[in-house]
Amino acid sequence: MDESHRSLCPINLGLEVFGDRWSLLIIRDLMFAGKRHFRELLHSDEHIASNILADRLNMLLAQGIITRADDPTHKQKAVYSLTEKGIDLLPILAQIGIWSLRYRPVSQELGATAVELERGGAPFWAERMSEMRQTHLAAAN
Amino acid sequence: MDESHRSLCPINLGLEVFGDRWSLLIIRDLMFAGKRHFRELLHSDEHIASNILADRLNMLLAQGIITRADDPTHKQKAVYSLTEKGIDLLPILAQIGIWSLRYRPVSQELGATAVELERGGAPFWAERMSEMRQTHLAAAN
Repeated sequence: MDESHRSLCPINLGLEVFGDRWSLLIIRDLMFAGKRHFRELLHSDEHIASNILADRLNMLLAQGIITRADDPTHKQKAVYSLTEKGIDLLPILAQIGIWSLRYRPVSQELGATAVELERGGAPFWAERMSEMRQTHLAAAN
Repeated sequence: MDESHRSLCPINLGLEVFGDRWSLLIIRDLMFAGKRHFRELLHSDEHIASNILADRLNMLLAQGIITRADDPTHKQKAVYSLTEKGIDLLPILAQIGIWSLRYRPVSQELGATAVELERGGAPFWAERMSEMRQTHLAAAN
């Protein structure tokens, strides 16, 4: 992509991609909620608007963080998958979850995955990422 | 604070605080660039606007992520410090940096800290956080 960057600092370059209130929620749904279709992603607790979801999916596609393919079981539906670059966002989500468990009013139900990620640590993250490679990278071909 | 949340999911609750293109850059400057004054924070490579910086500092203060105190050496200047809640954002910044080193056009100069954070891993992060407790938490009193 042709982009002009605010700076070549790694924090900035990350935020230029996912520094907003929605993009990492879409990644969360693909990673942990098993959501793979537009309509599923639309129906999350945070009530993302349809045009914002479409915009963020296009950005994530353009960035190579997700791919879109025809769903073999539903001819008219697209299925979204994480790429390796997308799967590698897991440690960022894990650390956000761990921080929120300590400092934010996380619900027991919605915090269960973050608790698992905190308890399991890096080896557990690697396991989850390996599972995602099976379910996501295969689907992209 | 009285807030209404989009959901009580830990990822969402984190993004409700720092899910924008600027807040974590301010944290970066406080953590790694030794910046503690408004004017220093204003003069970063990304050219944050003065009103946006003021807005984000107020948000970070209200969230208990930073504190503001009179600078004993400059009567008219405020000095900003990280709280424990702010220092605990380090692992999130570290993972963003590590991801960007792999996938974004990070400059060698600006990526040096991220390289250190990746090489040193969790023990090194704990050391840096311990140093910040010395320099930031003491200053807040």
